[in-house]
Amino acid sequence: MRILSGIQPSGRPHLGNYFSMMKRMLEYQETSELFCFVASYHAMTTVEKGEDLARNIEGVVLDFLALGMDPNRSTFWVQSDVPEVTELTWILSMQITVPQLELAHSFKDKVAQGIIPSGGLFIYPILMAADILAFRSEKVPVGKDQKQHLEFTRDIARRFNNVYGDILTMPEADISEDVAVVPGLDGRKMSKSYKNTIDFFASEKDLKKAVSSIITDSKGVDDVKEPEGPLYDIYSLFLDEDGRKALADRFRTPGTGYGHIKMDLLKAILEHFGEARERRATLEKDPDTVRDMLAAGAKKARAVAAPLLEDVRKATGLRYMR
Amino acid sequence: MRILSGIQPSGRPHLGNYFSMMKRMLEYQETSELFCFVASYHAMTTVEKGEDLARNIEGVVLDFLALGMDPNRSTFWVQSDVPEVTELTWILSMQITVPQLELAHSFKDKVAQGIIPSGGLFIYPILMAADILAFRSEKVPVGKDQKQHLEFTRDIARRFNNVYGDILTMPEADISEDVAVVPGLDGRKMSKSYKNTIDFFASEKDLKKAVSSIITDSKGVDDVKEPEGPLYDIYSLFLDEDGRKALADRFRTPGTGYGHIKMDLLKAILEHFGEARERRATLEKDPDTVRDMLAAGAKKARAVAAPLLEDVRKATGLRYMR
Repeated sequence: MRILSGIQPSGRPHLGNYFSMMKRMLEYQETSELFCFVASYHAMTTVEKGEDLARNIEGVVLDFLALGMDPNRSTFWVQSDVPEVTELTWILSMQITVPQLELAHSFKDKVAQGIIPSGGLFIYPILMAADILAFRSEKVPVGKDQKQHLEFTRDIARRFNNVYGDILTMPEADISEDVAVVPGLDGRKMSKSYKNTIDFFASEKDLKKAVSSIITDSKGVDDVKEPEGPLYDIYSLFLDEDGRKALADRFRTPGTGYGHIKMDLLKAILEHFGEARERRATLEKDPDTVRDMLAAGAKKARAVAAPLLEDVRKATGLRYMR
Repeated sequence: MRILSGIQPSGRPHLGNYFSMMKRMLEYQETSELFCFVASYHAMTTVEKGEDLARNIEGVVLDFLALGMDPNRSTFWVQSDVPEVTELTWILSMQITVPQLELAHSFKDKVAQGIIPSGGLFIYPILMAADILAFRSEKVPVGKDQKQHLEFTRDIARRFNNVYGDILTMPEADISEDVAVVPGLDGRKMSKSYKNTIDFFASEKDLKKAVSSIITDSKGVDDVKEPEGPLYDIYSLFLDEDGRKALADRFRTPGTGYGHIKMDLLKAILEHFGEARERRATLEKDPDTVRDMLAAGAKKARAVAAPLLEDVRKATGLRYMR
């Protein structure tokens, strides 16, 4: 089963990203043939400055490699290193209508957020369809907000195959209903826009500062505390059933202050991400190795996309005189 | 001065196409650096069947080569053989808004004609901008109907350069106000949709049939005829000042019937296009040579587009880790 997943390069990852998406994606490596790309073209719809885009791409590449993305087992590449998808975008744009595109929630939502309604933002679903179809993806994990885009993709594939024959693979959505909601420092959903994140690749000093600022009530060391709120919930993400019970006991038993628990959480974070943090630091100092990995990834990805594109070119008549 | 011109592959050419566009384009070879491509991607917005598109591309390639397009002097290629333009299309789509695209006359006109309002038709002006800008075109000959698209292109280039630095060449429109209107067999404008065309690459038999059916009044051999109407006007296209005077005299002087004049026009057409007709027949039998010419043309075109794209990728951040 080939699973395709795209990652938006949008700055430093935090625990919210990790537990709701990154961890899950990396787990696909164990069970499936994972195709995973850094969505550099897509990111252009919201990131304008060249240096920001390049830094974001580099960042997310290092993050995933550090967290265990294995370029030998999976196919991992930067979207724009396989520009065939833009050619397929043009070709597929004939298989969707403007009124359909106007129905896209994500376009309306982004424009409502104040993002410029560029042509790129409008045809974003066609590029997404091209990403999915270029690599003959069978399963695409999507959040509920992306469900509609996958429907567009299936529509496009269906119409294309109707006109040109059975060329494109029909992808299935894998909609995750139970995405973990990770609370932030202030108890609201962890999100960059709330500035309440814990960035697990930050320096120890910054991590300590973040963890220390998790909001609690004002109960002291000798008070009985309730096992709830962001400190308990965030810590729980790192614990199994037994660990969570033990943590709840510590909350309820006088003698341990929030400060102690926070320092234990800090240790747990550093332990959980210890290997990844080291690997990231090593990779950061060795851009040549990373470049080689990405070049190899693009080559593997192209090995699927290029013959597919050739079939598409033949069927649509772009291959004349054959 | 680099001039860029795109040709829509849309079936057999007729005298109307030749005198209003093809002849003029070929004349640019004498005075400018001509970049001329067969707009295969654009044609997809109206041609659905693969075999039709391939045949149309082949047809227009042979037509232009036969009429004197010189692949050594000019750069002549099929658009989709340089797919870099589709990547540039995506990148430039960030520099135009949906409300702007909605203003495009050509989209509204085509939809009014009953063409499906596909995403491709909607973003057609962005692909056109990419065509123009990918090849650093300085001058683009456009009919009045394409004037707006060139304004879009200049807008896109201006905005892109504002954000990313002075990378794209600002093209100038070369608007032809005095396009020859060629009358058809029935006196209306010569047009495929009126089925009143003279296809100068048709067989002699079909050409004779077409010329014979040019409408005239019912005056006989011994009547005085007025030098006007489609027979006089079409014939005039092949004559210089003196020739036109002589033709007018023949109309006015009794003794020559319309039939005679038609057969002389047939001769004039066969003479004017004689070399081209022969060359087309030869090329048609030698697809390998044509393929080689087009491969060489695509290579020349890519030699301009590839470094431009590389500059664009660097500026926009798609070239990470550099």
